[in-house]
Amino acid sequence: MQKIHRALISVSDKTGIVEFARILVDEFGIEILSTGGTGNLLEKNGIIFKKISEYTQTDEMFDGRVKTLHPKIQGGILFRRDIVDDMKDAERYNIPPIDLVVCNLYPFKAIISKPKSTLTEALEMIDIGGPTMIRAAAKNYPDVAVITNSKDYPLIIKELRENEGAISEKTRAFLAQKVFTIMAEYNANIANYLQKINFPDKKFGDNVIKIFKKVFDVRYGENWDQDAALYKDLSADFGLQNIKQISGKEISFNNYLDIDACMQVLLELGIKDYVCSIFKHTTPNGVAIDRKSQLNAVKRAFNTDPLSAFGGIWGLNKELTVEIADFIVNQKKIFVEVLLAPAYEEGALKILKSKKNMRILEFGDFLIKRKSIYKNPEIRSVLGGVLFQDYDFGPIIKEWKVVSERKISIDEKKALIFSYIICKYAKSNSAVFAKWDHDGIYTIGIGAGQQSRVHVVNLAHQKALEFRHDLSGSVMGTDSFFPFPDGLEAAVKAGAIAIINPGGSIRDNEVIKKADELNCGLVFCGKRVFRH
Amino acid sequence: MQKIHRALISVSDKTGIVEFARILVDEFGIEILSTGGTGNLLEKNGIIFKKISEYTQTDEMFDGRVKTLHPKIQGGILFRRDIVDDMKDAERYNIPPIDLVVCNLYPFKAIISKPKSTLTEALEMIDIGGPTMIRAAAKNYPDVAVITNSKDYPLIIKELRENEGAISEKTRAFLAQKVFTIMAEYNANIANYLQKINFPDKKFGDNVIKIFKKVFDVRYGENWDQDAALYKDLSADFGLQNIKQISGKEISFNNYLDIDACMQVLLELGIKDYVCSIFKHTTPNGVAIDRKSQLNAVKRAFNTDPLSAFGGIWGLNKELTVEIADFIVNQKKIFVEVLLAPAYEEGALKILKSKKNMRILEFGDFLIKRKSIYKNPEIRSVLGGVLFQDYDFGPIIKEWKVVSERKISIDEKKALIFSYIICKYAKSNSAVFAKWDHDGIYTIGIGAGQQSRVHVVNLAHQKALEFRHDLSGSVMGTDSFFPFPDGLEAAVKAGAIAIINPGGSIRDNEVIKKADELNCGLVFCGKRVFRH
Repeated sequence: MQKIHRALISVSDKTGIVEFARILVDEFGIEILSTGGTGNLLEKNGIIFKKISEYTQTDEMFDGRVKTLHPKIQGGILFRRDIVDDMKDAERYNIPPIDLVVCNLYPFKAIISKPKSTLTEALEMIDIGGPTMIRAAAKNYPDVAVITNSKDYPLIIKELRENEGAISEKTRAFLAQKVFTIMAEYNANIANYLQKINFPDKKFGDNVIKIFKKVFDVRYGENWDQDAALYKDLSADFGLQNIKQISGKEISFNNYLDIDACMQVLLELGIKDYVCSIFKHTTPNGVAIDRKSQLNAVKRAFNTDPLSAFGGIWGLNKELTVEIADFIVNQKKIFVEVLLAPAYEEGALKILKSKKNMRILEFGDFLIKRKSIYKNPEIRSVLGGVLFQDYDFGPIIKEWKVVSERKISIDEKKALIFSYIICKYAKSNSAVFAKWDHDGIYTIGIGAGQQSRVHVVNLAHQKALEFRHDLSGSVMGTDSFFPFPDGLEAAVKAGAIAIINPGGSIRDNEVIKKADELNCGLVFCGKRVFRH
Repeated sequence: MQKIHRALISVSDKTGIVEFARILVDEFGIEILSTGGTGNLLEKNGIIFKKISEYTQTDEMFDGRVKTLHPKIQGGILFRRDIVDDMKDAERYNIPPIDLVVCNLYPFKAIISKPKSTLTEALEMIDIGGPTMIRAAAKNYPDVAVITNSKDYPLIIKELRENEGAISEKTRAFLAQKVFTIMAEYNANIANYLQKINFPDKKFGDNVIKIFKKVFDVRYGENWDQDAALYKDLSADFGLQNIKQISGKEISFNNYLDIDACMQVLLELGIKDYVCSIFKHTTPNGVAIDRKSQLNAVKRAFNTDPLSAFGGIWGLNKELTVEIADFIVNQKKIFVEVLLAPAYEEGALKILKSKKNMRILEFGDFLIKRKSIYKNPEIRSVLGGVLFQDYDFGPIIKEWKVVSERKISIDEKKALIFSYIICKYAKSNSAVFAKWDHDGIYTIGIGAGQQSRVHVVNLAHQKALEFRHDLSGSVMGTDSFFPFPDGLEAAVKAGAIAIINPGGSIRDNEVIKKADELNCGLVFCGKRVFRH
């Protein structure tokens, strides 16, 4: 390992740089080259360094646009210490080696994130000298070390101390790799920005560059023999990675899919009333809202299908109280795979933690970040590529059109919209029966993922009967139109008095006629809510 | 618009560069700066240019590592023509403006793709000077144009001719955006390469950078109010984007999801026998293989559930013959949403094309590219990020363990494996009944996406009965273990004589006991095949 003799320091983020430079000079006798703001700061702190303009004998030009783009700097970084001809060139042109580059870039992303930033400001923030230096150092990592983040200073000092002023090959390789990741992201941000500036109407650009940062490996993927990991999208402000695990077993791949679906229902139902949403296999198993009682919401969500609620993913939208913990653990002795709540009463946590395997997750202020969470499009993998689409997070009702003779009361309307929301999160071709009382609305039968509309209505009906729900006087939502009147007929036969769907079948008239014949309320809302 | 006076040309890919440079010089009187290989080529072709080393009065150093990294070059590209101080600096330091940069980068990706490339070769291919120049020119696009791809030469020549030797602001902006996309990808490839070199055991790296290139916008996403587009993953060799549409309506978002699933079944079943796979809502609706007859395979896949096969996605693994087209269009008058085949007999196409709305797709040699297609991991979107996982494309049987007293014949084994493959592509908690004869195997009842194992067996059974299939003597596959013996009991009651599942329930012994009691063959294959 080669001892470091000369370091070039030019940082935009100056955190810890004075202390770091001081150690380089005082402890290891390293010569520092610096310039501009970094140089001023070092000077003010009495750290000895050489100005780059003196070193290259070339003035800084164009308001700093050209400072380090000089053969003596770039050559000093780039030449190979083990190639005789390179060494000869270095001697001949008087280019001493630069062994360490400490540099981070103009904060392009921070500037464009400001609400009133201009194109000129943005262009000014595109760093040219910095990327050249750090890429040159990274290319030449067999001989040169490059530090791009102040968080790495302690690691480097530790290494310098252990290796008598040198940095190991392994660390240099690691630092080099970091440079290219940073540069990929930096350039991607610029490309995406210019795309938006140049083609403001083009929602999905010609190129989309996504940078994902690993949150952690999960034990396995969908099945035992698939490796898998959870990644954060660097362009996202908020997401599942912000949910804190308090207790319980490791979260699995399939858990994450369920958590994702369950959180989306909570996001949609908001924080006004008490909500409980129970999922199993990415399908809603039971959902309830209640104006006054969290326990009521939980009991009703559970009662929809108490069998499948075991081993399910349970989400609550408000602080989870002791009585809920008691209901789950002591009264009903339910094994919950994953429990999600914004916060937990201390006493509740104590009870819940007695179940060592139960994954207890705290999501804090997640539910008030809906808009920011849905900023990025959804990604669906297909062989060789992806489909991007907007998340389906707009208003669930496009146009409220009562097409039946029978009118819809305000309570029925609320229950219909609720049932339609749950339909949205059930796999395509879904049907959801719901009931309500003075304080709440709740599911009593959920069918999903069937090949035909009449089949799924019958499935939801059967499931409701299996768990002894009385469907008479219920409402039903279904995620697309009725191709034939038979689906509506089946729903009314089951007990529904009002039904919501988008409308748009070529047999809409027949369907409406059947509704009137059976005195059933029928709403076309103009929006389909498939979920494949 | 400013006329272009001076251009710097330094290209790794020399396609068309001589002709392009000649036009710049002869037609527009542009002064050319060049170097190295590009310079040699221009010289050989009698094109007048100035050597960069003469222009900067600085020798090329370090075997070409330092050529253009010079204030006179970078300053000439970077200074702002509308800022007085910049203009003064340019005059003072004798830095004439460079108005056009024509440069493409060392082919890093091509080099590392070679089977025997070394780290030294790879590092040598990391371009430093090129990126600096094109990024500088792109930053300064209000004054400078930058061309990074020989395909853009005609566009530029056209513009120069139209604008009396100038390039419009709009084009300069477009070219600049391209630079940052190219640089994001270039750096991403280097980062991903170094990741693999430095951490060969780490399957999912700390950062994953994905670059997606738009194939086309789709009309809408999963629902009408969601915008969406199909993108190709630049790191994928092959995928859905390689499938050619011959006829029919535009392919929708949900079509793509179904096509993806249908193609995966074809990939898994291979090209030995005739295969027909019919999907609806990303769930297999009917699948059959036949050693001798394509028509038999198609008829049997269709017969599994002829109702839902209408409007489905139909995939065949061999050239589609006239008799198939005749069966679909003339005999059965089936509306197929999407038809997939490697090729079509001319007569078949003629019949099929009479159905204007039917999407007819030709996938050529897709099925022999399985390994390459599954090279990249699968991506599942979650809020704020993604889950990456290996595609589940390994052997479907981990260990063939007959755990029942009743033995399994060779034909039964084949049918069991077939039914288990179909289970894999049906949504989690699935059950598939299959039968066979001398030449083929085919599904007769498929259930999917239920909350419990006994429910899904009953669902598959009911569906089989609905379409008048005789289940006696059939085999059944189900995607995970039986938590209780009731699921197995239901399958035997339906008519199954042998069953396959992964095993691994805490009640495996009870399940085996029940199998023996009912004289049912039972195989544990050690692999779960969930699909959420």
